[in-house]
Amino acid sequence: MAQNELYYRDYLQLDRILSAQQPRSAAAGTPAHDELLFIIVHQVYELWFKLALYELDDIIERFAQPYVPEHEVATAVFRLERIRKILELAVAQFELLETMTPLDFLEFRDLLHPASGFQSLQFRLLELRLGLDEEERVLRSYAASLDERDRARIEQVRTQPTLFAVTEQWLERMPFLEVGQYRFWSEYRHAVHRMFERERAAILAHPALPEQEKQRKLEQVDSNAAAFEALFDAERYEELRRKRLRRLSYRATLAALFLMLYRDYPLLQLPFRFLDGLIRVDQQLSLWRYRHAIMVSRMIGSKVGTGGSSGYDYLLQTTIRQRVFADLAQLSSYLLPRSEIPPLPEQLQAQLRFAFELAGQG
Amino acid sequence: MAQNELYYRDYLQLDRILSAQQPRSAAAGTPAHDELLFIIVHQVYELWFKLALYELDDIIERFAQPYVPEHEVATAVFRLERIRKILELAVAQFELLETMTPLDFLEFRDLLHPASGFQSLQFRLLELRLGLDEEERVLRSYAASLDERDRARIEQVRTQPTLFAVTEQWLERMPFLEVGQYRFWSEYRHAVHRMFERERAAILAHPALPEQEKQRKLEQVDSNAAAFEALFDAERYEELRRKRLRRLSYRATLAALFLMLYRDYPLLQLPFRFLDGLIRVDQQLSLWRYRHAIMVSRMIGSKVGTGGSSGYDYLLQTTIRQRVFADLAQLSSYLLPRSEIPPLPEQLQAQLRFAFELAGQG
Amino acid sequence: MAQNELYYRDYLQLDRILSAQQPRSAAAGTPAHDELLFIIVHQVYELWFKLALYELDDIIERFAQPYVPEHEVATAVFRLERIRKILELAVAQFELLETMTPLDFLEFRDLLHPASGFQSLQFRLLELRLGLDEEERVLRSYAASLDERDRARIEQVRTQPTLFAVTEQWLERMPFLEVGQYRFWSEYRHAVHRMFERERAAILAHPALPEQEKQRKLEQVDSNAAAFEALFDAERYEELRRKRLRRLSYRATLAALFLMLYRDYPLLQLPFRFLDGLIRVDQQLSLWRYRHAIMVSRMIGSKVGTGGSSGYDYLLQTTIRQRVFADLAQLSSYLLPRSEIPPLPEQLQAQLRFAFELAGQG
Amino acid sequence: MAQNELYYRDYLQLDRILSAQQPRSAAAGTPAHDELLFIIVHQVYELWFKLALYELDDIIERFAQPYVPEHEVATAVFRLERIRKILELAVAQFELLETMTPLDFLEFRDLLHPASGFQSLQFRLLELRLGLDEEERVLRSYAASLDERDRARIEQVRTQPTLFAVTEQWLERMPFLEVGQYRFWSEYRHAVHRMFERERAAILAHPALPEQEKQRKLEQVDSNAAAFEALFDAERYEELRRKRLRRLSYRATLAALFLMLYRDYPLLQLPFRFLDGLIRVDQQLSLWRYRHAIMVSRMIGSKVGTGGSSGYDYLLQTTIRQRVFADLAQLSSYLLPRSEIPPLPEQLQAQLRFAFELAGQG
Repeated sequence: MAQNELYYRDYLQLDRILSAQQPRSAAAGTPAHDELLFIIVHQVYELWFKLALYELDDIIERFAQPYVPEHEVATAVFRLERIRKILELAVAQFELLETMTPLDFLEFRDLLHPASGFQSLQFRLLELRLGLDEEERVLRSYAASLDERDRARIEQVRTQPTLFAVTEQWLERMPFLEVGQYRFWSEYRHAVHRMFERERAAILAHPALPEQEKQRKLEQVDSNAAAFEALFDAERYEELRRKRLRRLSYRATLAALFLMLYRDYPLLQLPFRFLDGLIRVDQQLSLWRYRHAIMVSRMIGSKVGTGGSSGYDYLLQTTIRQRVFADLAQLSSYLLPRSEIPPLPEQLQAQLRFAFELAGQG
Repeated sequence: MAQNELYYRDYLQLDRILSAQQPRSAAAGTPAHDELLFIIVHQVYELWFKLALYELDDIIERFAQPYVPEHEVATAVFRLERIRKILELAVAQFELLETMTPLDFLEFRDLLHPASGFQSLQFRLLELRLGLDEEERVLRSYAASLDERDRARIEQVRTQPTLFAVTEQWLERMPFLEVGQYRFWSEYRHAVHRMFERERAAILAHPALPEQEKQRKLEQVDSNAAAFEALFDAERYEELRRKRLRRLSYRATLAALFLMLYRDYPLLQLPFRFLDGLIRVDQQLSLWRYRHAIMVSRMIGSKVGTGGSSGYDYLLQTTIRQRVFADLAQLSSYLLPRSEIPPLPEQLQAQLRFAFELAGQG
Repeated sequence: MAQNELYYRDYLQLDRILSAQQPRSAAAGTPAHDELLFIIVHQVYELWFKLALYELDDIIERFAQPYVPEHEVATAVFRLERIRKILELAVAQFELLETMTPLDFLEFRDLLHPASGFQSLQFRLLELRLGLDEEERVLRSYAASLDERDRARIEQVRTQPTLFAVTEQWLERMPFLEVGQYRFWSEYRHAVHRMFERERAAILAHPALPEQEKQRKLEQVDSNAAAFEALFDAERYEELRRKRLRRLSYRATLAALFLMLYRDYPLLQLPFRFLDGLIRVDQQLSLWRYRHAIMVSRMIGSKVGTGGSSGYDYLLQTTIRQRVFADLAQLSSYLLPRSEIPPLPEQLQAQLRFAFELAGQG
Repeated sequence: MAQNELYYRDYLQLDRILSAQQPRSAAAGTPAHDELLFIIVHQVYELWFKLALYELDDIIERFAQPYVPEHEVATAVFRLERIRKILELAVAQFELLETMTPLDFLEFRDLLHPASGFQSLQFRLLELRLGLDEEERVLRSYAASLDERDRARIEQVRTQPTLFAVTEQWLERMPFLEVGQYRFWSEYRHAVHRMFERERAAILAHPALPEQEKQRKLEQVDSNAAAFEALFDAERYEELRRKRLRRLSYRATLAALFLMLYRDYPLLQLPFRFLDGLIRVDQQLSLWRYRHAIMVSRMIGSKVGTGGSSGYDYLLQTTIRQRVFADLAQLSSYLLPRSEIPPLPEQLQAQLRFAFELAGQG
């Protein structure tokens, strides 16, 4: 190997990386074999979080522009897929951590006090940049466990746009809901009404159904129909938002629904994949949280965590409540079977195709 | 190939297996591409459940004997590992199911009504045979959605011993808690008291700690110590059982704790692995439930499931409440660091070794 | 549950599915516990193969049309992702099978003779429909181990179009290689030459490099440049095909390269993903083969397989040689850094965008 | 947070870890987005390798003792399981790396020259400490690509005991092959002969089998029987070792076979699991190598790797040839069905049980 040439060890800064494990148990004169596992697994988590934040920043920056060119949506889709893969690995990694038994953990656990995963700055930043609703945080005072430097960083990042916010704005700008005479929500509402009318008529016309059963089925249809009403009425929708049952704006919600219904048009394919990517990243993070809770329950039972957090119960609560894109997942409730979806006006259809396709038809 | 010889297709009965997919959408004249995926994924789940039940039955049968020879414990450990692998695959399988989007599911979803995964007999049997506490069931009336034949099978299996019950009895029979003068719980209690005394003394003797801080730390020690008390007092423990905060009997709990503390002795290694295997199977089933809940939330939003179940919320509740071996996981709270574990009397130590080792020492 | 309503068990035909396991060891009066695992794991493989074939058929049918509309490419991309997921599960499933030890397998292994996984019709159909080159088959006489019915099915499927063939034709039809005065291969060749010229000039102009080192580096550039030549010369390329070093036609190869280089244009994004999907399915199948080989080597050592196949060595050979889309993976060798990729003519660029984007610019 | 208390960031040395990523593309003024992914994925690999080496060192140290107490075998089994989990994660990690496309890699690939994964010191140490046979190395001159410091480390480690060597010695010391009059190999040989004699007799006595078919079947039995002969004859076995068809010593091979056949006795359960663990770690490393080869073929096609290695072909060769414990996997060929395994003498059986069990029988 010639001098001055790039060397694997230097490129990856391995002298730094591989010397950054200093078990406390060894320092205390009571070396515990499994502490190295514990340190390295956590360092790897932090490396994954750094990478996830980097990809997230890139997506937000692209979507924070007043106009997002179509090929940037494709890029964002790939970035989301990468974040999901990172979170999948992060989930699988618990299997490795759990090769340590609770008794082995106990050999060095008290030496770590009061340090705690609770103090992971990057994990907090990840939540912030995704756009976790601060009102839904199980523990709003989490910053108290951080030192000044980390708190300052949190405050700084808190002022930056979030993935939730830029997605909402991008959806709100989507121009296809009103084109010429066409109004998406009106067409959609009619389609929904037609669908339920047909269902009601079929029940009433049924030759053999007992009256009582008819009544039960009609009530079921009414109840299903009622669930759609909030989507047809901006005011009622805002009421749900005030009650924190919805978070995404009305306009953005309609745009997301439009994308989901008409996703087969070329122009909408990648925007649809983007929304689906958001749902899946959110879902994968939630799975990570639950896997984490399960690990904690096996490792320390009902004791409080090393940082004084209430352990399993706390993590379980974050799993359930701290979802960022639940509103998007929720929209599945409002989809229509393909046969019921109202067709788009020709003019709009043309806009959603490729220039090449139109030329070919010309 | 000669006639009368065993043929792959016949051995696996592939003519039956591969012709058992009859999409309803095709029958209804509106073929939906993804229904085959839906059917096959569910059939595979049922095949996994059959295998898991078979392994579970085998473990229960071995442990239902009045005396469980040591090599049978080893066998049970392998069986539990297999059940865990099955559940791991079952979790991974959701990734395949989710290549179907909600819109694609909607094309045949209504045709399945009112059939529902809720009606999976084998899954109910799995819960029953593991020993799910009927009082903790989120929905106790689940049998109403089953047909008579399946209900009858449930009733029959309900009379059989469960994994929880035979494990509890096996633990209760463990002879090492009292040997000659030796009483495990007394030794353990002394060790716990010594540990907390030492902690209190260290705080009081600290030269630089402000009084207020000392007080805070002493209270923390008291609170930790209090958490152990239930284990030292059979009556107090029974009180917890009455409140359904514990389920495992007091005697079985002490035996499990003994196994966890002294697991390094050869005779206890596999019994310890068995307990750990129970915790992990329980944990993996819980992860499966949560993964299921997440899938449902993406697929149908807040709508009720195809069988009328309340979907996501119901599944989430089962995830949280329906754990069978939570008491065993809980025991991590009562472990001591290795340096604090009281040594066993020589005579007992000898019993826990291999005959070969003793001969070697003679 | 009301009568005549669809029931989970009937929908999934569970009575058939769950009664199709008849261990030979039980029939022979020497029940072997692990045979049920063995049967079910193989039945699940066959269910996955059925699903994979179904998705594959659908893709081929779409691509066998004289013109493939853009949204069908999107559909094909999703289908390929699903096939990949199936193969990922199939790889993970070996972990379950390997909870059986070789000694446990031996308890029923001889009873299966001469049945063998070698006789899996569906796996052969999967290879055929993907378009496995019959000349590359390690064992061309495999059909001899099948019965007449299966052989007949093989012969029938052999006449149908393959994924390889329809992909090749689709690529050959791609209209963008020649548009007006523009010729892709000429532009590409110039870009390659320019790149190597610049590299040569930089070496020669280096002020401090010893003569010998310069010579070495120049030779390296020449060798890299030579590797590109086959792509610039249809005749030379055909020579490689005659030697079976390449399989894809020259025209299709150029079109695939075009897609890979210009994949950022909206119209090319999904076609690029399609090619990448083919590479990944091929890769995943190869991983499955290797995982299979590894399992066989642990399970039966160097013995021949139950069907008389030569086991590990045979499977290893199929892993290495039987790749269908190796030519596409190979194209990475001919990519250029983005800064070196020649720009497309304006007119062509416009065709590759969305109608909406063009309107926006107007 | 109080001062002087341990803080998460300091414990994990995150300031070092998270600042050790310096993309070359940014330094060169041409930032490539995916280089951070590339760096972090490789750093994580190195962290895993550090952990795997640490666990491996611990196992070797325990087995390098003249006598290995039984509970240390249990510890070694857990360590091997951990190493396997690490390698499983390392395989899964390629999925993340492959979210980078070849075109994206090309944006910074040339800037890394001549650094290469080939120069990973820790991976070489892992191979060395496992006991990779230097004669089987595909590229014996690999040290040439390392710098002096790394070469010196290699030389130092080369003098230390390997996992292969200490395992071989441990097996050779196993005292159960000769106890009193009992000789394992003689009993085993008789059992094998009896088995084949019975098979021959059954064929000859078959009332309906045509003469030609009988002959064919008898030849098959002879051929199977011949495969066992090497195990009955130390000289013949040494001949195989000289030809490098076997590596493990004759004595160690017999001891391993004994463990595999009698693994159900308590004393042998964990030693058997240890052997199985070795096979599985070896297998998982082989899967990692193949996954690596596949990744390289997609990423750079047939081009040479960044370090000048020949890429895919080289990695494929290492996958196939560089297995350390292939001889152990191979032993499956010599197992007997449980019904044919000769029983152990009573005296030996007693030694293989627990003291407690014997007392119980007294």
